[in-house]
Amino acid sequence: MLIESVPNFSEGRDRGKVDALVEAMKIPGVFLLDREMDPDHNRCVITLAGGREPLMEAVIRGVGKASELIDLTKHTGAHPRIGAADVVPFVPIAEATLEDCVGMARCVGEEIWRRYQIPVYLYEAAATVPERQNLENIRRGQFEVLREEIASVPGRRPDFGEPRIHPTAGATVVGARKFLIAYNIYLNTPDVQIAKKVAKAVRFSSGGLPCVKAMGLLVRGLAQVSMNLTDFERTSVARVFEQVKREAARYGALPLSSELIGLIPKRALEDAAACSLQIENFDSSLILENRLAAVMRSQTANLSENK
Amino acid sequence: MLIESVPNFSEGRDRGKVDALVEAMKIPGVFLLDREMDPDHNRCVITLAGGREPLMEAVIRGVGKASELIDLTKHTGAHPRIGAADVVPFVPIAEATLEDCVGMARCVGEEIWRRYQIPVYLYEAAATVPERQNLENIRRGQFEVLREEIASVPGRRPDFGEPRIHPTAGATVVGARKFLIAYNIYLNTPDVQIAKKVAKAVRFSSGGLPCVKAMGLLVRGLAQVSMNLTDFERTSVARVFEQVKREAARYGALPLSSELIGLIPKRALEDAAACSLQIENFDSSLILENRLAAVMRSQTANLSENK
Repeated sequence: MLIESVPNFSEGRDRGKVDALVEAMKIPGVFLLDREMDPDHNRCVITLAGGREPLMEAVIRGVGKASELIDLTKHTGAHPRIGAADVVPFVPIAEATLEDCVGMARCVGEEIWRRYQIPVYLYEAAATVPERQNLENIRRGQFEVLREEIASVPGRRPDFGEPRIHPTAGATVVGARKFLIAYNIYLNTPDVQIAKKVAKAVRFSSGGLPCVKAMGLLVRGLAQVSMNLTDFERTSVARVFEQVKREAARYGALPLSSELIGLIPKRALEDAAACSLQIENFDSSLILENRLAAVMRSQTANLSENK
Repeated sequence: MLIESVPNFSEGRDRGKVDALVEAMKIPGVFLLDREMDPDHNRCVITLAGGREPLMEAVIRGVGKASELIDLTKHTGAHPRIGAADVVPFVPIAEATLEDCVGMARCVGEEIWRRYQIPVYLYEAAATVPERQNLENIRRGQFEVLREEIASVPGRRPDFGEPRIHPTAGATVVGARKFLIAYNIYLNTPDVQIAKKVAKAVRFSSGGLPCVKAMGLLVRGLAQVSMNLTDFERTSVARVFEQVKREAARYGALPLSSELIGLIPKRALEDAAACSLQIENFDSSLILENRLAAVMRSQTANLSENK
């Protein structure tokens, strides 16, 4: 079982401190996939993957290290935040479910309070009340307002810990969500209004496809429909592409090309291929490499048993 | 480096003999992906995968075992054949090239003669003369004719061994080819003539797409374009699908669904997805699982170095 975690810390300017955060999370069985620092946001985003136990321990240690290194009373930056370790999502990858990640979020949340006395809120799939599914509701007013309201406003009581903020590390939001695919489609027109109309038609918030967020931008002189697909199992990349193509055609435009920002799970690509090619009998086990891996596992197991 | 080999043996009725052939090829590092027996053809097809050295040794042993068990002077069956071990193709899979497989075919061919005095012909990418790229040219007249012509007709001299057939095991054809994808598209019509016209338009032999073989059939009451894609890197599955769709539209028909027969390499699916979605920046390293595997390899290597 493999899970991804993408902790966001409120430090994006001091490379030494970010190094120390990464170092604190280095545990056998945890792999560093990516790290990004943004000085304007004054925030860093670390992408880790690993098994359940080592990944939980790594992230907990990262939260502890952040509470040593980051003082939110002195922190400024463009990005909203309530904690030194601000947000910690768990994302299922191989043979893990969203429920597994919800369980991890709860364990980690409890442990963060126990070890460091930092109060924890649960969000998205791990949320205990509907309003907390949306991260922005939890972060409203940021550290400075939450510091005042955590004890006095009943709706702001943390999920783990007493209703008092950590004096310098604030509070941490821990949760579980599905893999997010960032996918942009360029149209063969410089008319950004077309991209905006297409975005409006495909995004869920204005009546479009479930699990699709979209906006129209002008990028490289072209109209671009910039999207986040928050659940490719519900709305596939191929369906999104087809829908954008169809909507763009209403204004005489066509997709020119598309781009992925960051990574895409292989399942999402396989689904897109199977859907575009209309393969009725598609199944992951039809992929040569998957068959091979399964056979290798079972035949190696047989060899061991025969010893 | 991982290579596939798909030896075809002239035994499709006696399960015990096929078991013995499979058993003879069981070597650590060689994995059995599939085995199929056809009693009408009186032929079996064994699919193996493994690294270069163990796979070569496995296949050589299989050829030797076939020469013990199968007597071509007593063999009948619908499928053309010249040997007890009739055809042995090598197919590049992971991190292997067609050239690697050509090298393997030559080594194996030489060794088959050395160990068993069975003459060997090289075919497809391993062929030493253009006429031998096509297997059917080598197999012309089958065992019974080759037995007579091997010594007397200069064009039938084997690539390895002296020009005399093995009295009971005949000769073996060894070669290298790319992965073959068997892919069928059903049209939304029972009119097989439309499938035949579409097949004629898309297959290379009648002026269509390179590396595509196609015929029109009536299957489950529907017109089906049945295809072999012999090099998906030259002509992608997505391009084939689009072409069939376009040609079918000339007769008012549409693809209803499609099916894979056997396996498809993940690269072929990734290409299809990238092509259908017009992803301009597509690269295998954008796939989460690939990135993860690369990071795991390098970070595990680092750990080992630091010990």
